[in-house]
Amino acid sequence: MGRKKVTITEVAKEAGVSLATVSRIFNNKDGKIKISEKTKQKVLKAAAHLGYQTNPFAAALRAQKTGIIGILIRDLKDPFLIELLKKVQQQVQSRGMDVLIGHTDYEETTAERQLNVMMNHWFDGVILLDYVAAQHPFVDILKQYQTPYVSLTGDASSALWPIVHVDDAVGMQLAVAHLTDLGHKNIGFVGKAVSGVEHRLSLFYQYVPSANAKFVKEDMNNSDELYQFINKLAHHPEPPTALICATDYIALKVIHCAWQNGLHVPADLSVIGFDDITEASEAHPPLTTIRQPMEKMAEKAVNLLLQQIQDQQEIDQIQYKMAPVLVERETTKRMN
Amino acid sequence: MGRKKVTITEVAKEAGVSLATVSRIFNNKDGKIKISEKTKQKVLKAAAHLGYQTNPFAAALRAQKTGIIGILIRDLKDPFLIELLKKVQQQVQSRGMDVLIGHTDYEETTAERQLNVMMNHWFDGVILLDYVAAQHPFVDILKQYQTPYVSLTGDASSALWPIVHVDDAVGMQLAVAHLTDLGHKNIGFVGKAVSGVEHRLSLFYQYVPSANAKFVKEDMNNSDELYQFINKLAHHPEPPTALICATDYIALKVIHCAWQNGLHVPADLSVIGFDDITEASEAHPPLTTIRQPMEKMAEKAVNLLLQQIQDQQEIDQIQYKMAPVLVERETTKRMN
Repeated sequence: MGRKKVTITEVAKEAGVSLATVSRIFNNKDGKIKISEKTKQKVLKAAAHLGYQTNPFAAALRAQKTGIIGILIRDLKDPFLIELLKKVQQQVQSRGMDVLIGHTDYEETTAERQLNVMMNHWFDGVILLDYVAAQHPFVDILKQYQTPYVSLTGDASSALWPIVHVDDAVGMQLAVAHLTDLGHKNIGFVGKAVSGVEHRLSLFYQYVPSANAKFVKEDMNNSDELYQFINKLAHHPEPPTALICATDYIALKVIHCAWQNGLHVPADLSVIGFDDITEASEAHPPLTTIRQPMEKMAEKAVNLLLQQIQDQQEIDQIQYKMAPVLVERETTKRMN
Repeated sequence: MGRKKVTITEVAKEAGVSLATVSRIFNNKDGKIKISEKTKQKVLKAAAHLGYQTNPFAAALRAQKTGIIGILIRDLKDPFLIELLKKVQQQVQSRGMDVLIGHTDYEETTAERQLNVMMNHWFDGVILLDYVAAQHPFVDILKQYQTPYVSLTGDASSALWPIVHVDDAVGMQLAVAHLTDLGHKNIGFVGKAVSGVEHRLSLFYQYVPSANAKFVKEDMNNSDELYQFINKLAHHPEPPTALICATDYIALKVIHCAWQNGLHVPADLSVIGFDDITEASEAHPPLTTIRQPMEKMAEKAVNLLLQQIQDQQEIDQIQYKMAPVLVERETTKRMN
């Protein structure tokens, strides 16, 4: 077995300084933070002692900007994430830069490897689409390479970083208030077993009185499960009169299954979605939903990222919560 | 205005040699093709004359393999392309390499820019997902950088390069034969206005007698248009008894619109899709379809690409047509 390559982390430990300091010294990228000559010497001594080798090509190229932003996405089959990604790409392109995408398919090892690839190819920054820190220890990789990042959408409760996301609590309140105003009492919820949905489900339980929240399908994995759930509702003596869906994608499937089970939407069942993807307004009937301000969210995330790239400095660990709005279309109806 | 940067194309023109030759010389990447000292000198003289500057860092890094394959995809909302992309990624990863994705959203300028980015970041090769040469002059970019590429899926009639794709003619014959065997005569077609669909439509006209092919919706852009089309069928005195859909994605929308218009599938209308995406088997009722052998197609494309990377040589301009199969599920039914 060959000798293991010495990492920048080991150099930092040996020198007793932070990773960021070591990285700044090796990349000649002081930014606004001045590093003392004493610290520099300490780090260089530690590096020499451990046999750490810098890559002169890498250092030379890193000093330049590549104009490439990486997007790490974990599910390419989620239409909301794809629409958000497209808006991020438009924002980045409108500033003369471009985007390359890493698809991780929920695999942590893939996520880590792809981030390393982005770092090794000198991407200027990374947008983490629908990731949270608690699930993914790869924040260390980003810190080690001093690459700016912004998290966009996802469960913010475990966010450790700058994150831009919709205010789910406001969204759920809007949905419940809308249905309550229309006279609905018995309200159900349909979601899929992913992290963002858990959060929306907990908010559902918070805003719908438990006696009226009996019909919950929180782990819809495929159309078959959904069909069985809707079939059960169709034959229930006291079925819910309205369903809140964790996403528009699910809502559209719910409406399809409802039709197949003889439940007409909205005559027999009101359905409300979340996100306002393109298909929501194009559906028959057009879907009532809680709209995420995707355009603004993408713009804010890109601005936060570019600010860090320009200033060569991390920004504070802030959450930017954006308010959603109710878009009333034709899948919700006043109770008779 | 500063002086314009001299390109490798201009050097090739000045020296009277091919782009590939110039690229091989500057990248110290002779491969199996020996370049004579005389040619080398001619190119270096032309480069000096024009003031062409090589990037020493780039040359040094290009000599190494990066282990990254680029995928250029033009529509991230097409579920078939996403499933194919996932299979390509799995194939690449199983060989210890990884994939980064460029999304072009049907924009040629974006496609060209992203290809340049991939070249400048020393990607080892590129898979063009659903692109054809005739539409996209960026083949020149790939040739200039001597980067291997393979085209995967798409309309092969205008393909100038190694392409792996399904045999659409066999697929259409299977679909028509299946419906004819079930006693259907009056058969319609629903497609979307994109290139692959044009080809399937022309095959539809080829295999369905024109007297029986009266109901064709070839440019379905949104659910509203589709709804109106199905509504027209539902009220027609002699409606088609079966519809062939250009993709599963469209077939699932067709079935939904049929239900809304009181046409039960397959009792009143048989529907057959194309692709066999995951949703096809999970749908209610499960969709009868023409399956593209995605796994094999992805494997073949990756093998062709890696072969070129390894041999440092282009392969011949071959088409690999893969045979589709009929998957009979529950959306097609014998005529009463």
